Amino acid sequence: MTKVEKPDVLVIGSGPAGGAVARICSAKGKQVVVADYQPFGGTCPLRGCEPKKFLFDVTNVALRRKHMTERGLHGCIAVDWNKMMTAMAEMRDPIPSLVEQFYEKQGITGVHGKAKFLSSDTVVINRKKYQPENIVIATGATPRAVDFEGHELLISTDDFFEMKELPPRIVFVGGGFIAFELAHIAAIAGSQVDIVLRSDRFLRRFDSSLVDCMLEASRDLGIRLHTMMPPNSLKQEGNDLILSAGEDDIGFRADCVVLAAGRVAHVEELDPKKGQLELNKKGGISVNEFMQSTTNPRVYAAGDVVGNSMELTPVASMEGLVVASNILHGNNENPDYSVVPYTLFTHPPLSSVGLREEEIKANNIPYKVFEGSASGWSEYRRLGEQYPSYKIVVSRTDDTILGATINGHNSEEIINIFAFAMRTKTTVAELNKWLWAYPSFGYTIRYMLK
Amino acid sequence: MTKVEKPDVLVIGSGPAGGAVARICSAKGKQVVVADYQPFGGTCPLRGCEPKKFLFDVTNVALRRKHMTERGLHGCIAVDWNKMMTAMAEMRDPIPSLVEQFYEKQGITGVHGKAKFLSSDTVVINRKKYQPENIVIATGATPRAVDFEGHELLISTDDFFEMKELPPRIVFVGGGFIAFELAHIAAIAGSQVDIVLRSDRFLRRFDSSLVDCMLEASRDLGIRLHTMMPPNSLKQEGNDLILSAGEDDIGFRADCVVLAAGRVAHVEELDPKKGQLELNKKGGISVNEFMQSTTNPRVYAAGDVVGNSMELTPVASMEGLVVASNILHGNNENPDYSVVPYTLFTHPPLSSVGLREEEIKANNIPYKVFEGSASGWSEYRRLGEQYPSYKIVVSRTDDTILGATINGHNSEEIINIFAFAMRTKTTVAELNKWLWAYPSFGYTIRYMLK
Repeated sequence: MTKVEKPDVLVIGSGPAGGAVARICSAKGKQVVVADYQPFGGTCPLRGCEPKKFLFDVTNVALRRKHMTERGLHGCIAVDWNKMMTAMAEMRDPIPSLVEQFYEKQGITGVHGKAKFLSSDTVVINRKKYQPENIVIATGATPRAVDFEGHELLISTDDFFEMKELPPRIVFVGGGFIAFELAHIAAIAGSQVDIVLRSDRFLRRFDSSLVDCMLEASRDLGIRLHTMMPPNSLKQEGNDLILSAGEDDIGFRADCVVLAAGRVAHVEELDPKKGQLELNKKGGISVNEFMQSTTNPRVYAAGDVVGNSMELTPVASMEGLVVASNILHGNNENPDYSVVPYTLFTHPPLSSVGLREEEIKANNIPYKVFEGSASGWSEYRRLGEQYPSYKIVVSRTDDTILGATINGHNSEEIINIFAFAMRTKTTVAELNKWLWAYPSFGYTIRYMLK
Repeated sequence: MTKVEKPDVLVIGSGPAGGAVARICSAKGKQVVVADYQPFGGTCPLRGCEPKKFLFDVTNVALRRKHMTERGLHGCIAVDWNKMMTAMAEMRDPIPSLVEQFYEKQGITGVHGKAKFLSSDTVVINRKKYQPENIVIATGATPRAVDFEGHELLISTDDFFEMKELPPRIVFVGGGFIAFELAHIAAIAGSQVDIVLRSDRFLRRFDSSLVDCMLEASRDLGIRLHTMMPPNSLKQEGNDLILSAGEDDIGFRADCVVLAAGRVAHVEELDPKKGQLELNKKGGISVNEFMQSTTNPRVYAAGDVVGNSMELTPVASMEGLVVASNILHGNNENPDYSVVPYTLFTHPPLSSVGLREEEIKANNIPYKVFEGSASGWSEYRRLGEQYPSYKIVVSRTDDTILGATINGHNSEEIINIFAFAMRTKTTVAELNKWLWAYPSFGYTIRYMLK
């Protein structure tokens, strides 16, 4: 090994969290090294939100076109999978080198390699030792491991984004965010899709009645949903894969089986024990309210690796900004998780912010509910959407929004308005008085809150 | 004439303004008569926003599909004009009878006929006299008359919505909201479209630099734009119409020439003089801050007929609510025009709220501007949009939003967030800290305000 490097800050991981720390610390004059064993950019732009949203946008037009058949759009269109994936890759693939260029311009040292703690203050990457003033762990999350027989035949969601041809039959193992998002894309593109879930309820983070509407929309796309089906084995049979699952060992025949059973903090390869890093219950880096390791003050963590975050890009970015500020100015900032809107990009998208009704009820908060189907509203009728729906939970104490869930076109935009209302403690009475652009989907909050 | 009717409230006009007054006053026990010489429902649902948005939604999918060609959507689609118009009519045509049914259920008396003042307290409709406690004028607006030679060959925008076939060549006389919205629909559906404007600047209500981006998008659709072209004459020549316009008498050959030169308060047929109603400078009913006639306290007015309003459905509804409250409880409410977001539904839509930079500058308010092209942002790149752009004007005094204009997909949703920020005097610093659903177009405000 050569001499020990002593930068001000070593950031392990180059996604939205690590990237924010590196950018800000470097702009303020710190010597920064960023290490990533994968291409620079992180999950969101390379294997997450960005490519997913690209595929969503293309397939969304295909689906809306179908809904428009009775409204005067004739001719037929189909998704050319290979062309779509190539176009997506054309947007995605330049990102790592753009990040590299940015690092170079900013004087940030980019290193490709796996980082491993040797001690509480020393990290090794590519056989080179680093003893930085501060170490920031922003390694994200990695697919949750499964160990049933034949699991090595599974592909990952990362692999899904590299598929050059669309398999005629796809099974998703797991029924969380990414499973539904990719399932909708594949189904609209023409694949026969099964989602096989270990437990009895999909997408627990959302209100279950709204999830039911999304499941109906999924079934309309031909997606088959299976609950209480823990996988038993995966076998190759000729060209087919057979996933056996559930008590009755039901067989699902497919060309491709995708593991989408959630993600866990990506910590193991760091050797956290040597780094004197405590892990929390979810297996992430245990941090205090300043995003600083509870056991090693030299170390901060941000993004999915914290394990208690919501695995959302905006949360990772926010945590990155908090860490940067705390490194630069001493511990002074905390992440604010109070109002975090999020969207599942199915067709249509399902969006939520705040508390679910069941949480509110469990906490004995006095509340009332505005809920129902929006299928009669002209905004959705024009699009031919079948299951638009909403549930808004409002405090009986002060008439403010406690939580909102919306299933329907542009729900990712409407939910931002409810997030804004929660931030500012705006009452339903006020929301009902104000003017919104018409017709916009934001305007429909007036129908919801009647 | 038969006996004189003496209802509590006579509402003249059944659109969003009059409808709101009738609904609320009747729910509170007032005897209400609603008169309209056209089918019940008003301009917005029958000849305005609603049918327009229907045609926007269909053509938007057609255009987005085209932008997606390079992204993997193959096959071709085209707009079947007749089918699209039939589908639109299927949504629209039941509305008047639904309104009639609602009136019946509510105990509101609906009358079809033209209303005319005989005196300050008496109105005649279909030879029947009414002496109501209160009279509400909500007759909306009517196309601004033109008097050049051959103007009787023009069709109105109402007629446009009834066209069963798409004319191959359309000329729009006038360059305001409705001209651009219908021009975009017709151009995407396959018509050759010219917009011929009397003056030198399109859409003065929007920031001119953002209008320029929208004009570029219009040209890309094949729309030809002509300024400084006051029409001189319109003549039939065989199957063609020839519009001659401008100093050089340039000839525009078309199959159909649509008058879209703006609308004026629809008051003349009411005989406002006999009703002791003063008109304001814009030709609308002159009202005080309670929406009450400045010269006849028995009379209130709401919606486009006021002439000083913005000809927007949400504004008309709000004014209707104000009038209803003032009739029921005595003058106690005022309309609030302080924050009114609005959208021009071109492809992409152009949206605005608050003051334009030129107004702010003229008022010597200290300000700064965040502006630029958004074409590099992945949200727009994914859609293949060419001219997305924004201009946000912020107070230097307190960091709040003074005005915002956005050209791009979903701008009708983003503008609601800026309206919310203006309502709550939220600062740019706060907006930049908060989390928004990702990826959503609302999220892009963080890129705008950097």
